[in-house]
Amino acid sequence: MGEWPASMLNPPVRVLMGPGPSPVHPRVYRAMVAPVLGYQDPVFHGIMDEVKALLRLVFNTSYEMSFPVSGTGSAGMETAVCNSLEPGDHIVVAINGFFGGRIAEMARRYGAEVTVVEAPWGAIVEPAAIKAALESHPRTKAIALVHGETSTGVAQPMEEIARLAREHNALLILDTVTSLSGCPVDVEAWGVDFCYSGTQKCLNAPPGLSPFTVSPRGVEAIAGRKQPTTNWYLDLSLIRNYWESGRVYHHTPPISMIYALREALAVVAEEGLDARFKRHARNARALYAAVEAMGLELFADREHRLPSLTTVRVPEGVEDGRVRGALLSEHAIEIGGGQGPLAGKIWRIGLMGYGSNAEHLLGLLSALGGLLRREGFKADTGAALAAAAEVLSQPD
Amino acid sequence: MGEWPASMLNPPVRVLMGPGPSPVHPRVYRAMVAPVLGYQDPVFHGIMDEVKALLRLVFNTSYEMSFPVSGTGSAGMETAVCNSLEPGDHIVVAINGFFGGRIAEMARRYGAEVTVVEAPWGAIVEPAAIKAALESHPRTKAIALVHGETSTGVAQPMEEIARLAREHNALLILDTVTSLSGCPVDVEAWGVDFCYSGTQKCLNAPPGLSPFTVSPRGVEAIAGRKQPTTNWYLDLSLIRNYWESGRVYHHTPPISMIYALREALAVVAEEGLDARFKRHARNARALYAAVEAMGLELFADREHRLPSLTTVRVPEGVEDGRVRGALLSEHAIEIGGGQGPLAGKIWRIGLMGYGSNAEHLLGLLSALGGLLRREGFKADTGAALAAAAEVLSQPD
Repeated sequence: MGEWPASMLNPPVRVLMGPGPSPVHPRVYRAMVAPVLGYQDPVFHGIMDEVKALLRLVFNTSYEMSFPVSGTGSAGMETAVCNSLEPGDHIVVAINGFFGGRIAEMARRYGAEVTVVEAPWGAIVEPAAIKAALESHPRTKAIALVHGETSTGVAQPMEEIARLAREHNALLILDTVTSLSGCPVDVEAWGVDFCYSGTQKCLNAPPGLSPFTVSPRGVEAIAGRKQPTTNWYLDLSLIRNYWESGRVYHHTPPISMIYALREALAVVAEEGLDARFKRHARNARALYAAVEAMGLELFADREHRLPSLTTVRVPEGVEDGRVRGALLSEHAIEIGGGQGPLAGKIWRIGLMGYGSNAEHLLGLLSALGGLLRREGFKADTGAALAAAAEVLSQPD
Repeated sequence: MGEWPASMLNPPVRVLMGPGPSPVHPRVYRAMVAPVLGYQDPVFHGIMDEVKALLRLVFNTSYEMSFPVSGTGSAGMETAVCNSLEPGDHIVVAINGFFGGRIAEMARRYGAEVTVVEAPWGAIVEPAAIKAALESHPRTKAIALVHGETSTGVAQPMEEIARLAREHNALLILDTVTSLSGCPVDVEAWGVDFCYSGTQKCLNAPPGLSPFTVSPRGVEAIAGRKQPTTNWYLDLSLIRNYWESGRVYHHTPPISMIYALREALAVVAEEGLDARFKRHARNARALYAAVEAMGLELFADREHRLPSLTTVRVPEGVEDGRVRGALLSEHAIEIGGGQGPLAGKIWRIGLMGYGSNAEHLLGLLSALGGLLRREGFKADTGAALAAAAEVLSQPD
């Protein structure tokens, strides 16, 4: 290894404005270096209880089974799938982007019979299509969908689909990875049964944990399984024995990441959810106005935009990779490219949690405007900055 | 939530001398708060390559497929099981403690036919027993065993069993969670095909990742599967596409934990494996001598002790929970109790990585001696300290 093991890791500072990870809050960084405790230390048990209480606040639920899963958001997705479904069960999966497709793939691996309800990438899933799928499959065990599609920037309206799930006695699985704490997520009011999120989006902690909550109906479904899930690491019936009163060892929890999550949730609680949602909405409106003033086109429909993640069409004649590369190398700003069929066609701009602020927004507009002009696109940077400032100066 | 979200997390400082987590190295804590990068940032890709090179050094292997799995050690165990086995495959699992039993449980969940080779907790697994199991199951796909049993403090000799695996054309799965970087782990020389570890033992990073390495024979076995593993999150055929040249998104990696692992591995590389093994062995010998001088009895046989984790019998008339509770509350020292059939019967004392040092050892002896006398056991603390100092003063 020569000399280099002696040199410290020294990554550069970036302005993280992609689809995640988002900027980590300074208070979260500090918590991460708090001294590690043993996983059976009574003080750590107290911290676990704080995390559970704070998760209930952020998910807006009273569900007893609320704790983080020891993996990233996709592990949370798999936890929802593998605990709710048994081989042969039928599930309706709504797909209007990359992550809905991932749910379907996982459900198939666990032996479920999957009915896909597709909508175009960038559109919402229509409740009527879910209704039709439920009516043609009367013994549907679960419906799964994505509240905030990270691949398209679309926020899915939930009320009607939630009502359909209850009417058809189907479990409701909801992905809130990119929406949680960035816009209202009313887990209990909607009657969501398995809800998962990620730490690296609007919560502003590093990636590594998946906040999770399960309704009493979901808990009953787990208890009533004919056989345990194939997945041992993500088996909620085992994990709960450690996170609930028994404190029975299952796996060594990622202590420092749980510290990070505790602090990230406390930051949210300190600001208050309503204030946080208003801030996200205002900064998103400023971005919409600015992007259009610059001469660019937004991808998702106005009525269904996710305030934490905005998608913008890459204009004709502009090369996606060159612009994002220069944003990173010349301005230290990261934004995301498109996934799947949208690769090269859209940009994904995250204004998430602590990162949803005027400084990041204005810095991006200035840098992006200059780079677009270099590409030959007549971006009006001044108009964009003025439009953003105008929205930022308005009362909520 | 009242006022408390505004108060920072403030856990106490403990001397971590249990079975893990071990004390986190200061250099690792510093790396954890390095600025988070995006998972497609070229600088982060460079850090991933450093981690892979350092993992090969620590596993003592040239295996191309060497990267951390995004979960704790048990996720590493499940990764080995779910990628190597298909439903109906036969596996021989050696069980001489808690973690061997866990491997068998996982293998059964994935539909494997499991033959258990049992040895008493505290003993090694005899190669002859493995040989007999292989001979009565000629189409065995894999053999799994634990190199350092965290539940008993036993280190399993590997050469003969590794030879048997090759002779019978069976894949070899090895758990090195508690042994890696604390004593020789020669993955390639032994011909191990799937090897996993944890970050929170001898590597002195927080729990959360499982260092992993797969032999070319293991890679071939994955490529030759009839169907993908049920487990999407731990599917190595997908994960490798991100960790190898393609950088294809699978899940958002736990960036800060990967920083921690990079730095932890660099600390190991800086010290050098030989020096590290000698240090672990010397401090373990000092602990053995001290414990016996105090009048206590060691649990594992001298020839097969794991230098990083020492097991001691709880003496007659002494209450396990009261002693460990007082160690924690009065001395801020954590040691572990027994698991399964050994609950209440043994203590598990970790001297792991950076935590394998004279100060922790002497501090524990002093505190433990006093508490044992309070329990009515005539511990000779002075003799214990002198015995430890005597060993510590000897040349390697």
